[in-house]
Order: sequence, then C-alpha cells, then structure tokens
Amino acid sequence: MRPYERDPAAIYAQSFAIVEKEARLDRFAPGMAQLATRVIHACGMVEVADRLAYSSNAFEAGQNALANGAPVLCDCEMVGAGIIRRYLPRGNDVIVTLNDESVRARAKEIGNTRSAAAVELWEPHLKGAVVAIGNAPTALFHLLELLDAGAPKPAVILGFPVGFVGAAESKAELVNNPRGCDFVALRGRRGGSAIASAAVNALAAGLPEITQ
Amino acid sequence: MRPYERDPAAIYAQSFAIVEKEARLDRFAPGMAQLATRVIHACGMVEVADRLAYSSNAFEAGQNALANGAPVLCDCEMVGAGIIRRYLPRGNDVIVTLNDESVRARAKEIGNTRSAAAVELWEPHLKGAVVAIGNAPTALFHLLELLDAGAPKPAVILGFPVGFVGAAESKAELVNNPRGCDFVALRGRRGGSAIASAAVNALAAGLPEITQ
Repeated sequence: MRPYERDPAAIYAQSFAIVEKEARLDRFAPGMAQLATRVIHACGMVEVADRLAYSSNAFEAGQNALANGAPVLCDCEMVGAGIIRRYLPRGNDVIVTLNDESVRARAKEIGNTRSAAAVELWEPHLKGAVVAIGNAPTALFHLLELLDAGAPKPAVILGFPVGFVGAAESKAELVNNPRGCDFVALRGRRGGSAIASAAVNALAAGLPEITQ
Repeated sequence: MRPYERDPAAIYAQSFAIVEKEARLDRFAPGMAQLATRVIHACGMVEVADRLAYSSNAFEAGQNALANGAPVLCDCEMVGAGIIRRYLPRGNDVIVTLNDESVRARAKEIGNTRSAAAVELWEPHLKGAVVAIGNAPTALFHLLELLDAGAPKPAVILGFPVGFVGAAESKAELVNNPRGCDFVALRGRRGGSAIASAAVNALAAGLPEITQ
C-alpha cells in the first residue's frame, strides 16, 4: 500500500495550499476568498471559482447574520448534515422543512415540488436568515417568487442547486435580480449540498482549520 | 419571473433524458448505466462518466447485497442523509460511525483521522456490506489497509472521496488492487457525498422515477 497523509491538520493545510496555488484567489476580497476556498475544497474543482457570482456585501451580510444568531434555512437534509455545528457562532438553528408532514399536501395544492412547498414553511424564520439551497432549483425559484410576493427578506441567499433542469436558470434569475438580498451562486449546472454547506461553514468560521 | 418546470416527474424525465443524450451511456451495461445516470444527475456533470472505474460485476454485487438485506456503511452523515430510504429493498441499515464517542480517542491511538478511525468500527458489519465513501480519502485508504490485514470483505466499495490530498491516490489504489471486492470509483479529485449516495440509490432502485 502506498503511504498517505494521516494528520488532519496537515491534510487541511496541504489542501488549502493547493487551492490557493491553483485558483487565483486574489480576485476575491478576503471573506469571499475563504468562501471560495471552502467551496472548491468541497467539490475538488478549482475551476468553479470562475463561475462564482456574488453581491459585493454577501460575505459580510452572511457572517453578520450568523454572528447575530440568525437561523440557517436549508432545502434538504444533506445541506443540514454538512454544516459543522461547532463552527456556528451562536448555536444557530439549522432548519430543514422538507420532511415536514404538511409538505406533500402543500406541494399538491400549489402545483409544485415538495422542495418548493417546503420553502413556504420558512416564512416565519426568513427575515434576516441565511438561506442555503444545495439541491432543488424549484426551491430557489419558489423562494424568489415568494420574495416577489412580499415575503420577508433573508440576509443572504446561498444558491447552489444542481442539475440539468432549472439549476442554471434559477441561479441566473437570482444573480440577475437578487430582489434586495445579498447572494452567492455558482452559475451553470454545477452545485450541490456539499458546496452549499461549505459556503455556510465559511460564513460561520472562515478557515479555522489553518488560521487557529 | 421566468416560467419553470414544477412537475417532479417531468423534471426527472427531462433530466435523465439530457443525461442520456449527452453522456453516451451505451458504453455501460444496463445496471451501470443507471448508476452512471444517477451519479451524473447528482453533480450536474456528464463528463464524470468518462472517469468512472468499476469492476464488471460491481452493479450486480451491490444490488444483490442490498436485496439480501446488507447494511450500507457510510463515511459521513451527508452520505447517509442522501440515501433515499424508501428505495432500500429491505429497510437496510444505514450505518455512520464517524460521530461515535470512541472515535476521537481511537484516531489518536492509531495516528490517523477520525474518518479512518471510524472505519474500524465497521468491522462487525463489513462482510458482504455496501460501503459508500463520499468524503474522506483516509477512510478509503484505511479500509484498504484493514482488508490487507484480513478484515472481512464487503460486497462492493463505492469509492467517491473528494479533494486535493489523497482522493485521487486512494481511488487509484482501490482501482488498481480492489483486494477481491467489487468496486465503483470516480478517478481523480472529484467525488463527494451526493455522488456516493446516488450510487447507493442506483444499486437500491435503479431509476424508479422514470421506470415506474
């Protein structure tokens, strides 16, 4: 068997060093560079840095929201599972409504997916929240529809739905008209829950694996 | 707001049709074509089909193991969260040992990561199991070390660790010497928990969203 690196601190340090060497992070402000690093680290692809779109205040808005105790609203359990709880500065709530018992009936009622219906249950928590969408384009589309209809605005929308139907389009809609919310998104088909969780972890703690 | 597809069945059908059109799935036997479809769907990248490595009996070995009630051993909570429980043919156990209370001490003892230490706790469940690694290269490396030391053999190893340090190397080790286990792996840096879960879901149920 070949030798391999077994020390967690060394693995993190080498990983982040490779990202820094390959990804030209100097295009980003410091906070967004940390977020880009975690996103790249989560998917193993330095080139996603080229497709990141974000509002200029997105990192600070999300960081401040978490520092003030805002909840994190996730579109699926995987995003919730990837959020490193000990990094959250205020023991912030991580809320996933997808498997709420009312969701199936609501989806039928509104003629949309369960992921979209689940977003309607975010409404009492939405004002000033951190939204992390890592799976369903319809969750992001429906959130934008709710904002158009006057729903409370989150602090930041982390838009990382993935796939072939609606992912690129929903993120283009978010980027083109963020509706007064700060945002980070990965343009195109790529995305996913590990990337969405990584973005939340960056807002929560930056890169504590190498800076502490 | 632009119009978007809201019908889950239509979204799945369109997604899988795009994958079929772009990915040249005819290179795969039917079961592996379904697994490749789910893997591509999970990450939004048709080109990963070109980096899939697998033993010729991998799909059947995994499918049969699940049909016979084998457990699924996952290296992190996210992989477990992505497994669609209703697709599992025998209500199979999904086991994640990473957060077991003994893991931190064991990691220190063996001089390896928590992910690697957690793999040692798989041993009573390992024989004939489906192993799904979607995060840590050290989990895959250490599993291979345990097999070399005589640990019971799983039915199939789904090797999808991701990242810059050890991911490509651990998967190369798996592919080059699978140690008598069937395997599926994505060569290179790319991988992740969504891909690992997708592979399990394919073994469990194929593509029930369009075939039922």
